[in-house]
Amino acid sequence: MFSKQLTETIREYPDFPKKGILFRDIMPILQNPDLFSELISEMSSSNLLKECEAIISIDARGFIFGSAIALLSKKPMLVARKIGKLPGDLITEKYLLEYGSNELAIQKEPLNLYDNFVIVDDLLATGGTVKCIENLLARKNKKVLGLLVVIELVELLGKSKFKFPVESILKF
Amino acid sequence: MFSKQLTETIREYPDFPKKGILFRDIMPILQNPDLFSELISEMSSSNLLKECEAIISIDARGFIFGSAIALLSKKPMLVARKIGKLPGDLITEKYLLEYGSNELAIQKEPLNLYDNFVIVDDLLATGGTVKCIENLLARKNKKVLGLLVVIELVELLGKSKFKFPVESILKF
Repeated sequence: MFSKQLTETIREYPDFPKKGILFRDIMPILQNPDLFSELISEMSSSNLLKECEAIISIDARGFIFGSAIALLSKKPMLVARKIGKLPGDLITEKYLLEYGSNELAIQKEPLNLYDNFVIVDDLLATGGTVKCIENLLARKNKKVLGLLVVIELVELLGKSKFKFPVESILKF
Repeated sequence: MFSKQLTETIREYPDFPKKGILFRDIMPILQNPDLFSELISEMSSSNLLKECEAIISIDARGFIFGSAIALLSKKPMLVARKIGKLPGDLITEKYLLEYGSNELAIQKEPLNLYDNFVIVDDLLATGGTVKCIENLLARKNKKVLGLLVVIELVELLGKSKFKFPVESILKF
């Protein structure tokens, strides 16, 4: 019931942000507070979270789910952001996106406080961004315990890039 | 006590993102789940929120506070994002930042559902971004009931741009 309602709430936009990409928009979930609350409760109850020391949310849609999950699960949260957005000492790593390329940064100081993390994002596509964070963390001997997303695009085989578990609420 | 702890938690970075700017980083709040929880409870209890139909969170740090407040206050949330990030029919408006310039977009469809909004962001500086959203909404006869931020930089007089109330947890 919950996942049927969630599926119906997510909007599809063909050819966004470029031709050939079917963009799945999670924003309409936010227009339904009960549905959003149920989704965040469901994601926050993941066993992955119980085992990890902190969450890493990915800029920018990942923040929407990450911070609500951090609030509910009482886990510290770090952010992975595009280069130029975070102040202080950073660790950076380049990555390829489903469309385009970029570089991610995490602040060194909070990263040093914890040893293992669960990554939170809205959607797993090819997994390039998450792989980038895993590589970045590995350089500091930090471990990813798992990935928590609302949507997994199974045909893109992002999951196959990782040895850690991927938990998604919806699969397309 | 709470606001003392919050003040001590916020880190200052001189000359970021460019020379002459003292950047106040709210990210360390996220490393303290109890403090984050207290902050979100405080912001969610604002009377402004009780009166509004929906929240508008500003990309990207605004998402961190907006979605947690949306969760706690059970308010629908819309997002204002930089151009190119949101799919579907959009309303866009240009703005000047404290450093640089940009263009914001809001999705038309959810905007049509509500008449009045509270804007949520991490920090009020000169108020250019918020003014941009107010102008954008005014074109559709929508109203901003207030602005809710963690930090207000009072010397920059951002508040003077608005007729609606500004509520901040910390003032510098």
